[in-house]
Amino acid sequence: MTDVVIPLYDGFTALDVVGPYQVLAFTPGVRVRFVGEQVGPVVDDVRSLTLHTSARLSDVTDPDAVVVPGGPGTEQALNGPIPLWLKDVHEQTTWTTSVCSGALLLAAAGLLDGQDATSHYSVLDVLPMFGARPTQRRVVELPDQHVITAAGVSSGIDMALRLSELLTDRTSAQAVQLWVEYDPQPPFDSGSPAKASADVRERAAAYQQEARTRRTG
Amino acid sequence: MTDVVIPLYDGFTALDVVGPYQVLAFTPGVRVRFVGEQVGPVVDDVRSLTLHTSARLSDVTDPDAVVVPGGPGTEQALNGPIPLWLKDVHEQTTWTTSVCSGALLLAAAGLLDGQDATSHYSVLDVLPMFGARPTQRRVVELPDQHVITAAGVSSGIDMALRLSELLTDRTSAQAVQLWVEYDPQPPFDSGSPAKASADVRERAAAYQQEARTRRTG
Repeated sequence: MTDVVIPLYDGFTALDVVGPYQVLAFTPGVRVRFVGEQVGPVVDDVRSLTLHTSARLSDVTDPDAVVVPGGPGTEQALNGPIPLWLKDVHEQTTWTTSVCSGALLLAAAGLLDGQDATSHYSVLDVLPMFGARPTQRRVVELPDQHVITAAGVSSGIDMALRLSELLTDRTSAQAVQLWVEYDPQPPFDSGSPAKASADVRERAAAYQQEARTRRTG
Repeated sequence: MTDVVIPLYDGFTALDVVGPYQVLAFTPGVRVRFVGEQVGPVVDDVRSLTLHTSARLSDVTDPDAVVVPGGPGTEQALNGPIPLWLKDVHEQTTWTTSVCSGALLLAAAGLLDGQDATSHYSVLDVLPMFGARPTQRRVVELPDQHVITAAGVSSGIDMALRLSELLTDRTSAQAVQLWVEYDPQPPFDSGSPAKASADVRERAAAYQQEARTRRTG
């Protein structure tokens, strides 16, 4: 079985985790595990969803692929064990990937030095502090570095379908797309800063503030 | 706070739950709770993700909105307490909704009698047994019945954005769409039976069989 590992930390964003989880867990021959600093519960950014890790980071030394989620908790996770762990396991992985602000953890591990990368639009300007070059793209694949970064939250689904293909073959990944009926038909079209109105961008910025308050409050 | 409740049962599909959870939990003024027959852990269809309920179904009598997820566990859940609970709480809800095979639970509760509905493509033919009229649409909104059904798994995100709008206003729902960067760019286009090749449809059917074996094995 291909061993895909998702490291969790306090204050992750749930869909960053479960979008890729679902695509990869439905991919034949792939097993997905949640890992963390400890074995046990880890709480999301909204404080209303808990996932459980089944192994400690220190016990996971050679995963085939890694998906690092984002969320308001990334800031604190930058000072935790994940960046060093990523630096180590990246030498063994076929692909090391991130969703949303998870890219900052890859960058802190030195995996994006001088490379193009993407992340949640609200933290793109932080990437250069870690030596990465921000792009506006939804998914950035670096075959030489065996690294993929994805933009905010739901982009993890698009990224994971590509990762599913890379770990198996196109027909298998397309079958996962069919099984999860990923034929998107959003009721409106404001899913990127370029497409959203000023009103919508302002309202979303207020969320960011609220999310930070919730996590630290 | 608007009280949105997601009933969980053994063998749910994780993205059916977490797509809507994320959209609604990020909607200002909305609180999302997981409920179940008991308070405690509930395991997904792949047997590798656990969510926790915070209240018993019998203690939740007047939620503002309900989102019923699907998954291979639906078959067994049809004989559990959810259909009767749905029948009761539906008299109080502003909207009662489903994702994927969760529509069968709404149908079993009598909420889709003689109505158009949608569900995962693999179980559309089961809907008439419960008196509902299957459609190929991704989201079916019935304002008079205050019911919305969505197609398979990822369609819950599209449905929840509309529900977010119905519970608040369009700008707020668009801000959620922006915050989760839901500007889908799938790497291929096989997300519905009509778009998928015969090979892909066959591969996906094999998953269904595998998923059933996993749950009952």
